[in-house]
Amino acid sequence: MKPRIALIPGDPSGIGPELVAKLLAEPGLSNEADVLVIGDSHVLEMGQHQAGVKNGFQQVDPLGGEWVLENSESFAFHPTQTIPSSDVKIAEATQSSGASVLSTLDIALDFASDGIVDAVVFAPFNKQAMHSAGLGHDDELHYMATRLKVENYISELNTFDGMWTSRVTSHIALKEVAERVNATSIEEAVRLIHQILCNSGISSPKISVAALNPHAGDGGNFGREEIDVIAPAVQSLQAAGLPVDGPWPSDTVFLKAIAKEIDAVVTMYHDQGQIALKLLGFSRGVTVQGGIPFPVTTPAHGTAFDISGQGKANLGATRAAFDLACKMVSHWG
Amino acid sequence: MKPRIALIPGDPSGIGPELVAKLLAEPGLSNEADVLVIGDSHVLEMGQHQAGVKNGFQQVDPLGGEWVLENSESFAFHPTQTIPSSDVKIAEATQSSGASVLSTLDIALDFASDGIVDAVVFAPFNKQAMHSAGLGHDDELHYMATRLKVENYISELNTFDGMWTSRVTSHIALKEVAERVNATSIEEAVRLIHQILCNSGISSPKISVAALNPHAGDGGNFGREEIDVIAPAVQSLQAAGLPVDGPWPSDTVFLKAIAKEIDAVVTMYHDQGQIALKLLGFSRGVTVQGGIPFPVTTPAHGTAFDISGQGKANLGATRAAFDLACKMVSHWG
Repeated sequence: MKPRIALIPGDPSGIGPELVAKLLAEPGLSNEADVLVIGDSHVLEMGQHQAGVKNGFQQVDPLGGEWVLENSESFAFHPTQTIPSSDVKIAEATQSSGASVLSTLDIALDFASDGIVDAVVFAPFNKQAMHSAGLGHDDELHYMATRLKVENYISELNTFDGMWTSRVTSHIALKEVAERVNATSIEEAVRLIHQILCNSGISSPKISVAALNPHAGDGGNFGREEIDVIAPAVQSLQAAGLPVDGPWPSDTVFLKAIAKEIDAVVTMYHDQGQIALKLLGFSRGVTVQGGIPFPVTTPAHGTAFDISGQGKANLGATRAAFDLACKMVSHWG
Repeated sequence: MKPRIALIPGDPSGIGPELVAKLLAEPGLSNEADVLVIGDSHVLEMGQHQAGVKNGFQQVDPLGGEWVLENSESFAFHPTQTIPSSDVKIAEATQSSGASVLSTLDIALDFASDGIVDAVVFAPFNKQAMHSAGLGHDDELHYMATRLKVENYISELNTFDGMWTSRVTSHIALKEVAERVNATSIEEAVRLIHQILCNSGISSPKISVAALNPHAGDGGNFGREEIDVIAPAVQSLQAAGLPVDGPWPSDTVFLKAIAKEIDAVVTMYHDQGQIALKLLGFSRGVTVQGGIPFPVTTPAHGTAFDISGQGKANLGATRAAFDLACKMVSHWG
């Protein structure tokens, strides 16, 4: 059975609709998955116009039972009415575009919750637009977790070119990082990325944990968290059978990842991983919403207002997000 | 007048002697500078043997007056006796090799202090060896500053491929970083790198200051140092005529540097810069001892015990350190 993927076009003001059109025009895509496109007809048509391609859609009723189209040239389509076409403003973060994003996301999440699809892939959202439309959370991950009543640990995971990262802390002030690094937060970040790596078909994942302090604390000279907290946490996880090592100085651990000696780096704070990922070209990578009970992936880049509506958007990261979601469905559980 | 450069072979156990031999064998080197080689004869001979080259030396007496050799095929040489040849252990950090480093460094610093040379270039040191020989400081920069009775602000600066970094804080625990970021420490770091950029012949340097918190604090949501401390410090420096901007999110500021939009990034903490530099190939870069009253440069890489004695050492960073020292002499002041 092929994975059943809900695909939503993201913010209509950005490059999302164009990316969805380009993705659906990829040869052989329907051999890889049964795709359910959820979105407003005029938004999807706009995307095809921007991309210079034509997608075939066939309206289905996912709530009415089996929606998968057998041997069809068309993609299953669940039409929505989330934004009037006159409200679509290319390259502008508007309340209407944010509301459109949240409405289509809600439907996709509900379908996945109800077992109608196996995974969700979304084209780029715009945080400013979502906030103006009442997101009510720091980011879409926390919004999703609340809607899905998820109580376990959640964290955005990033992957690019076979290298993964997770974070022990994320959107907090740097001065608060040290006190938030503890046995529990390290264990949660390691276990989550280990689970997701296994769910992505990596049979024997290798995970390295970054240090907090320069030179990994230099034997306690520049901070004791490595000695008192991180190393014991790593040892405890090793004792529990997890394939993890560290702490490694954060300015060298990414060299191990580039050399493919390891699959993932667990970072202690946001910029520790993001500096490395962005320099390595992570805009071509994929973000996974970790801790959600089904696979949810998206390209790492944003709505790219500087090129939206121009047909210039590169499909690479969206294609990678789609392929990863398919792979995760087949290894999930 | 050519710059007069003191050149010392660094730790005899490492790749330093080989690098000095290779550097001196570069065609046309003596057209660029008047080089004064300071070191033990047997160490320099070992380096030539390792490198598979032959350097011509002519012993001089720098303390006795003019030491520059006119129209000579040989390099001026001030012989030392800092380590018995039987004590040289390839690829081992020993007390003897550390003592040898400190002795030759002392002589080079004294010569530069006394105006006998204009600048010092050193091949890689080994911190462990220096510590065992009584370095008595965190690093060679602080050792030099103490010996030279420097009371102004000092900081290691790094440069690679036209991109420079300096640090507001360095070898301290991450949890102490935020409290050490203040108007004074930011101003010192910016003014130092501005001075060194000008001293390196960059006529209109552009300097960007990194933020401390993720997303530059996201308007105060993830820390207020950008609003309360860094932005006012930058504005005050701008008002004083310095070509500086920021604070910029630290995961994007290096993209500006790669794009050559700016010459330098002033980082808030050690790993913020080091993660970026090491990923970009900084082992091929140069370290400048900032705040010392004359140019002191060295390759950014270390003693490389894994390849020492094997003739495999790459001259690139040492050549760049030498060229930068020459350039700094001509723009110093």
